[in-house]
Amino acid sequence: MKFGVDYYPEHWPRERWERDAELMVAMGIDVVRMAEFAWARLEPRPDVYEFEWLDEAIAVLQNVGIKVVLGTPTAAPPTWIAQSDPDTRPVDSHGIRMSFGGRHHVCHSNQRYRERSAAIVTAMAGHYAGHPNVVAWQIDNELGNSHNPLCYCDSCRAAFHGWLEKRYGTIDALNEAWGTVFWSQTYAGFDEIPTPRVTPNSHNPSLLLAWRRFCSDLIVTFMNDQCAIIREHDSNVPITHNLMGFFDKVDYTRMADGLDFVSHDQYPVGFWTEGSHLQPAHRLAMPLDFMFGLKDKPFWIMEQQSGPAGWETIGATPRPGQLGLWAAQSVAHGADCVVFFRWRTCLVGTEQYWHGILPHDGEPGRRYDELKKTVAALKPVMDRCSGVGAEPEVAMVFSYDDLWAHQIQPHHPEYNYTGVFSRFYRALHSRGVPVAIVGPGGDLSRYAAVVIPSPFTIDKTFAARLEKYVEAGGRLVVTTRAGIKNRENVVIPVTPPAFLDRLLGVRVSDYDCLRAGSVAVSRNGEAIGNGEFWADVLDEGSAEIRARFAGEYYAGKPAATRNAHGKGAAYYIATIPDDGFAAQIVDELCRDAEVHPVLTPPDGVEVTRRRTESEDIVFLLNHADAARSVAVPAEWEVILGDSAAGVVKIPAFGIAVCRAAR
Amino acid sequence: MKFGVDYYPEHWPRERWERDAELMVAMGIDVVRMAEFAWARLEPRPDVYEFEWLDEAIAVLQNVGIKVVLGTPTAAPPTWIAQSDPDTRPVDSHGIRMSFGGRHHVCHSNQRYRERSAAIVTAMAGHYAGHPNVVAWQIDNELGNSHNPLCYCDSCRAAFHGWLEKRYGTIDALNEAWGTVFWSQTYAGFDEIPTPRVTPNSHNPSLLLAWRRFCSDLIVTFMNDQCAIIREHDSNVPITHNLMGFFDKVDYTRMADGLDFVSHDQYPVGFWTEGSHLQPAHRLAMPLDFMFGLKDKPFWIMEQQSGPAGWETIGATPRPGQLGLWAAQSVAHGADCVVFFRWRTCLVGTEQYWHGILPHDGEPGRRYDELKKTVAALKPVMDRCSGVGAEPEVAMVFSYDDLWAHQIQPHHPEYNYTGVFSRFYRALHSRGVPVAIVGPGGDLSRYAAVVIPSPFTIDKTFAARLEKYVEAGGRLVVTTRAGIKNRENVVIPVTPPAFLDRLLGVRVSDYDCLRAGSVAVSRNGEAIGNGEFWADVLDEGSAEIRARFAGEYYAGKPAATRNAHGKGAAYYIATIPDDGFAAQIVDELCRDAEVHPVLTPPDGVEVTRRRTESEDIVFLLNHADAARSVAVPAEWEVILGDSAAGVVKIPAFGIAVCRAAR
Amino acid sequence: MKFGVDYYPEHWPRERWERDAELMVAMGIDVVRMAEFAWARLEPRPDVYEFEWLDEAIAVLQNVGIKVVLGTPTAAPPTWIAQSDPDTRPVDSHGIRMSFGGRHHVCHSNQRYRERSAAIVTAMAGHYAGHPNVVAWQIDNELGNSHNPLCYCDSCRAAFHGWLEKRYGTIDALNEAWGTVFWSQTYAGFDEIPTPRVTPNSHNPSLLLAWRRFCSDLIVTFMNDQCAIIREHDSNVPITHNLMGFFDKVDYTRMADGLDFVSHDQYPVGFWTEGSHLQPAHRLAMPLDFMFGLKDKPFWIMEQQSGPAGWETIGATPRPGQLGLWAAQSVAHGADCVVFFRWRTCLVGTEQYWHGILPHDGEPGRRYDELKKTVAALKPVMDRCSGVGAEPEVAMVFSYDDLWAHQIQPHHPEYNYTGVFSRFYRALHSRGVPVAIVGPGGDLSRYAAVVIPSPFTIDKTFAARLEKYVEAGGRLVVTTRAGIKNRENVVIPVTPPAFLDRLLGVRVSDYDCLRAGSVAVSRNGEAIGNGEFWADVLDEGSAEIRARFAGEYYAGKPAATRNAHGKGAAYYIATIPDDGFAAQIVDELCRDAEVHPVLTPPDGVEVTRRRTESEDIVFLLNHADAARSVAVPAEWEVILGDSAAGVVKIPAFGIAVCRAAR
Ligand SMILES: [Zn+2]
Ligand SMILES: [Zn+2]
Ligand SMILES: [Zn+2]
Repeated sequence: MKFGVDYYPEHWPRERWERDAELMVAMGIDVVRMAEFAWARLEPRPDVYEFEWLDEAIAVLQNVGIKVVLGTPTAAPPTWIAQSDPDTRPVDSHGIRMSFGGRHHVCHSNQRYRERSAAIVTAMAGHYAGHPNVVAWQIDNELGNSHNPLCYCDSCRAAFHGWLEKRYGTIDALNEAWGTVFWSQTYAGFDEIPTPRVTPNSHNPSLLLAWRRFCSDLIVTFMNDQCAIIREHDSNVPITHNLMGFFDKVDYTRMADGLDFVSHDQYPVGFWTEGSHLQPAHRLAMPLDFMFGLKDKPFWIMEQQSGPAGWETIGATPRPGQLGLWAAQSVAHGADCVVFFRWRTCLVGTEQYWHGILPHDGEPGRRYDELKKTVAALKPVMDRCSGVGAEPEVAMVFSYDDLWAHQIQPHHPEYNYTGVFSRFYRALHSRGVPVAIVGPGGDLSRYAAVVIPSPFTIDKTFAARLEKYVEAGGRLVVTTRAGIKNRENVVIPVTPPAFLDRLLGVRVSDYDCLRAGSVAVSRNGEAIGNGEFWADVLDEGSAEIRARFAGEYYAGKPAATRNAHGKGAAYYIATIPDDGFAAQIVDELCRDAEVHPVLTPPDGVEVTRRRTESEDIVFLLNHADAARSVAVPAEWEVILGDSAAGVVKIPAFGIAVCRAAR
Repeated sequence: MKFGVDYYPEHWPRERWERDAELMVAMGIDVVRMAEFAWARLEPRPDVYEFEWLDEAIAVLQNVGIKVVLGTPTAAPPTWIAQSDPDTRPVDSHGIRMSFGGRHHVCHSNQRYRERSAAIVTAMAGHYAGHPNVVAWQIDNELGNSHNPLCYCDSCRAAFHGWLEKRYGTIDALNEAWGTVFWSQTYAGFDEIPTPRVTPNSHNPSLLLAWRRFCSDLIVTFMNDQCAIIREHDSNVPITHNLMGFFDKVDYTRMADGLDFVSHDQYPVGFWTEGSHLQPAHRLAMPLDFMFGLKDKPFWIMEQQSGPAGWETIGATPRPGQLGLWAAQSVAHGADCVVFFRWRTCLVGTEQYWHGILPHDGEPGRRYDELKKTVAALKPVMDRCSGVGAEPEVAMVFSYDDLWAHQIQPHHPEYNYTGVFSRFYRALHSRGVPVAIVGPGGDLSRYAAVVIPSPFTIDKTFAARLEKYVEAGGRLVVTTRAGIKNRENVVIPVTPPAFLDRLLGVRVSDYDCLRAGSVAVSRNGEAIGNGEFWADVLDEGSAEIRARFAGEYYAGKPAATRNAHGKGAAYYIATIPDDGFAAQIVDELCRDAEVHPVLTPPDGVEVTRRRTESEDIVFLLNHADAARSVAVPAEWEVILGDSAAGVVKIPAFGIAVCRAAR
Repeated sequence: MKFGVDYYPEHWPRERWERDAELMVAMGIDVVRMAEFAWARLEPRPDVYEFEWLDEAIAVLQNVGIKVVLGTPTAAPPTWIAQSDPDTRPVDSHGIRMSFGGRHHVCHSNQRYRERSAAIVTAMAGHYAGHPNVVAWQIDNELGNSHNPLCYCDSCRAAFHGWLEKRYGTIDALNEAWGTVFWSQTYAGFDEIPTPRVTPNSHNPSLLLAWRRFCSDLIVTFMNDQCAIIREHDSNVPITHNLMGFFDKVDYTRMADGLDFVSHDQYPVGFWTEGSHLQPAHRLAMPLDFMFGLKDKPFWIMEQQSGPAGWETIGATPRPGQLGLWAAQSVAHGADCVVFFRWRTCLVGTEQYWHGILPHDGEPGRRYDELKKTVAALKPVMDRCSGVGAEPEVAMVFSYDDLWAHQIQPHHPEYNYTGVFSRFYRALHSRGVPVAIVGPGGDLSRYAAVVIPSPFTIDKTFAARLEKYVEAGGRLVVTTRAGIKNRENVVIPVTPPAFLDRLLGVRVSDYDCLRAGSVAVSRNGEAIGNGEFWADVLDEGSAEIRARFAGEYYAGKPAATRNAHGKGAAYYIATIPDDGFAAQIVDELCRDAEVHPVLTPPDGVEVTRRRTESEDIVFLLNHADAARSVAVPAEWEVILGDSAAGVVKIPAFGIAVCRAAR
């Protein structure tokens, strides 16, 4: 399978199905995802299952050679559950039980909901186990979505207590770990611990971090329970789930462990997106690289944007070419299959304006024609690079602990962990340097350089791993607020960067929350950018000074340092760099680590590769709304796109693909 | 009756009443509205009625020749109802019962509240039936106001279920109509359907539209129940209610059906109004024309602003002249009686700063003196044109279905149905073209031209009526998003403008939500304005192109078309025009339909007329804060204001009136 | 005692305590506040008290000569109260009970919480009565803080009913006083009166003012109950409480009555502060003068900022010198003891980023070194002026009634009573004129001039006192909205300024809420500033016109008047002056009242004094981030700071102190 669509036969008259299947085949579709919101049609009354319509829909597709991914429908519990078990509905942070309506209107810890979920999954798995046309299972849909946040009901509170007891063993250990002595919050038993419902004041940050971890684990176990049922019935068919990039409610590194492969929903321009259809390439690329890193292998796009996306409001309309460009970008970053959401724009319900390939009237139009060409152009390219990725020389470490800890206490009102992460990613990406995104537990030894923005929470084991990495020759970059907290969100009583002091060769004795604006940074007296949000004041240390602050009472003090350590070196950035300063850091890092870009692209063009044993497939993606020319090495073969005399000309929103023998 | 005041004798010492009555007579007041918040004084304990004080107040007025409009006091339920029946208090969208306090702190479906309301209305009607000084009844006060939104209690939910059953007959019909197959929301019975309380996600837009209709009907039946009681006791006295212009919670076309005449509360500058006392004339005129259209006959102003309006905050102070100007504007647009709110500024309670004609100290001041002159000047004018309106040649269609459907799904975050409506109204109004505002069921055949902004929801019957109108020679203008939805808020699976395609001669195959800004529009290569919020991409059709987009990927495609049809023509505007583009459209429309303005006024001056069988009474209203000169036809007689050599000179915030024989 | 720290021995290992004590002594600390959040450690289970650890901590300090202030720990109720008595948790304005978490998660009217509070206070007072090292008690911590607003539970409602019955005697009296006839809100009994929970509409402003008074009294009685218990056991040790400047929930004039001396928490730059570390001096000085005025004697700073202040977000970092400057400012305005919050930055809980003198690592750094010097420099100065204040010639009257009434009805959306107050304070303060801030009941006869911004609520007694003050020679300034309401928040039916008309010699017959912007003010045809928010239109009266409006329909009408009365004069400002206009008013007032500044300081430098019987100690405080030179009279002796030839040179954020014999 290379290209698919998300399809809801239950939304359309039976007599339309064959026409849909024919139109799909005509544009090159070879797989369809179905059924993930069809619980009420599959089990209209408790324990009454109706699979005939789905059997028939699968058969219609099978007849034209289209395979099927089956979704378990637990994201859309039917009315009869809410009716018979009102406690399945979630409770908000004020303690108010929410209404039936929308989707995911459930509490994931609720026993009754979990029983009914297990029953429908068991029935489906039993019915479809071994079906020749079913090539994969998808669990639920975008787990953790639709809630903001999850649920604060009594069942969740009890589940939280159990989770805490398992983690801490005794209440004394928890009190000690969380520092509940503060403001007399010492607990006599686990059952006294509140969920973080609204209170006159702030909750303990250690409790808040534990709650985030618990909520993530709750979702992961909910998913894994379904995986276990399916595997019991149908052990040969792989299981996936559609993730949402840097969505913050679930630790995707843990979720990925339970899946055979990960899928991702890629919406470059949603109704929630500020501004126009023009989006910076790195913003779209970063989640794709994150998905690849989760299992260090290719992934699927289970929902690739196929038109304007909207609910009550509607996002900017993708321009001619953009839908194809974005699909190609997914492939370029490691998608082995791209499934478009959705086949046809829905007439009813909340997603009437979440446009599919076909418009409401069902007639092929601009989007169908464009994507048909895209599918035809990309298929041969995908034949060459299926199963492999970019093999980056640089890694970035993304940590849910650090994300959550910064969400709980952002320090500066505008500080945003993922935003800071993306500054470094952008600096690398815009230079044509492929980036691996790995979790804190990832193997770093494969990379010439590693960037860890704000490694805020830390322990001695992690510090030792970083030391070992640098000793062996690695180049490491970390920023301000490194080594501040332990894993319980408690401050480490050691001068920052705490356990990283020897590696980094610096000592932070004072700091400045930049509430009034940024601070200038210079190198050799020349301005090279600004520091934002936060600035450290460093004591003299062993590290070499690479940039200095050029303002405030710490003017002249180090803004960036480099500490040689073993065969490698560790950089400390004493602030959050703006784009200009970040570019300088990345340039120095690449020189130092001898990292080379695939190609240095012109502005607006993205370059990345997929590397097989014998060749690099290089993608040139023009995100600008004007044509761009790219000079490529003479030895490269242009396998998609127009070129002359070593220059590839790419139209606005167009793509080109080259191959380079290794 | 021509001029009145809203008066609360219960707020003032008995010994003041005669002085108030004398001051009223001295300024020309001939009618008073009373009692609409006096429930606690009329029925201090359940079933104990005290009418003596009100009898006496009426008598004091009668003695000086002032008539009375009696309000039923159900907008202000006394404490004893909330105390004995806490369920009468409304429930918010989270399911929380609100507190006693303010007014309208009730659920309109609550049986106990309806019983108590019926009882007090029965008692009042019984007591005052046939009273020679009572000239009209007002039901409640601004029904639907004070709530945002109404109520989500169990009683309302049950009433909603009943309403749905009546509308749909069977649950299968509802499921089919609403498309509840989406996200597994299929209902097994009406009793499963939720009110749209807060849920983790959005509700089905079809449910949301049904809820808006139900809430409107609930208010209308509440009002009609009171009308029935009064008519039983007092069949000769007309019944009215004070509406609030384009207030969005009640379908005023349905409400008006139950009334003998409509009244309106006109507050040009409230505490909620942005900016200064200077308000564009069309913003104030549009609700007045809407009121006239509801029953196609003159109306009353039951609350005409008489000073700064405020609760916690206070609006801009009306400048000398403005109060009189605004009263004259009400008359100019068809008010046969203008009642000022209020007589004297209240000392107590929430409306201490909702200023009356008299200040807090009760002494006549600037406002009394000004309005006394206004009353004297307008009375002879009103003698000439009572009972008639402007007889416009152009109509605009205002649809609650389209308003509500756009509120539920505004498409563009800044889109506002009433705001778009007012763009076309403004373009006509500022040219001196009187506008009739009618509902979708209104008779269009009387008008040379009809404008329907965004006729979003549509059915074949309505499409056929529009075709017939144009066939017979009418000129019709509709905008983008015409013919998208059926009456259930479900998308019609036909290429837009769906059933209007033949009439309009266009086909919308693609569109662009203008999230990044507006798109330029040109005619013959010359810029004539911009399109906003949305732009359609049209296929070639039978319609003549009248303007083209001058930007984006659809540059050169039609922005406005004209399709000759029968003896008439239909225009399609493929976007929401800004003021410049709207002016061009209206100019072309007036030429095409041979519509002529009353007079083309200078900037800041409003012109409108009331047309009797023999003459036009033409009003010239200067909303600018500087004097204006207006040239009028030689044959016109200036009956109010200064003129010389065919030029009428109007001071800042002043008025002039002419008569023109027909 | 002159300098202290807030210290939490329970947060740190026992083996650290001696080192902390030694470091304190080394920097000159002589007093420590403790225990105010330690309830769970002092009473881990109901009625089980553990004082040993606290005894030991006190002993460690006693050994090095440091005294102790003991806090009662009722701001941090332990989990066992919330567990056994869930009703102790507060209820929000929707009627939802809030969660355990943070601090002050209690209802102050809850009987069970008050019993448990009395028990712990009784136990502590019994245990520590007569302890030689305990020099003062602090009740609770920042009472009224952490809630926004207090609590709307049934217990509070019942307490409110009791409070109302005590105040009004009969329900008829309340109905009459509040004007409940408005909107039929007449109550049949006290038990019908709601707390001001959320309702579809606004509550009666008279009810809202009563509620604010009740909530304040509830806090005050809660505090006084604890005072009584302590005095019973330990009658010789003074009792204090840490107030929060212009915090609006408690009437501090009433709270101060129950205390032996007041304390204040001074945070010039909190996480909630807009902008940078540069804060205008008057903003920091005003609460200090308010604290002095509460008991007309020196006060303590119980929490003086000692580093960046933060919870989830963090405020700007104080620059080198600022912490010392701010401590000196507290002394300059009458603090006899300055206690820094806190000793060491906490590792755990909500206040991890509320930085202490020591950083997280416990090692003395920049802040320790700076404040050590400050302590050494200020101690000799404090020896000279302990026990006395500035003896200002000008007073300003701050009224909680007027604050609350304006919060309930701010008139103009941007109007802010304390902000208006600070405009006049700033004009005086920036000229080097010391200001006394007194309550409406304060003795005015001691002052040459008195400023009362917006004396909105008034009665005849207060009016008579003002008349008497002016008759005897005083100069009085009042602004617009003087004399509008009685003490029940009901409008007085007399032309404003009501009972002040004879004194002020003006009559307000019209007014303008300045929603569209400010109005120019001129004197002798020259622009001198602007009026904001509101402008009165005055009839001709006896008062002399000192400034006129230069715009709007009342151009030429008085903007400021002076009315000679007896031996004095009363000014009426018919608007809210901007800084320019306020400066003119204050200049004229000082000339008129023969008030002289201590010294006219250059921009950025604050000057104030403390006056003993024999000398003035004059403080020069440089709040600017650059050095400033100040010329001082030849006869002054510079006792702190550098001077040459009568010019004192003060570095950025530095201070100087002079003495001048009287
Ligand atoms: Zn739950
Ligand atoms: Zn209801
Ligand atoms: Zn309470």
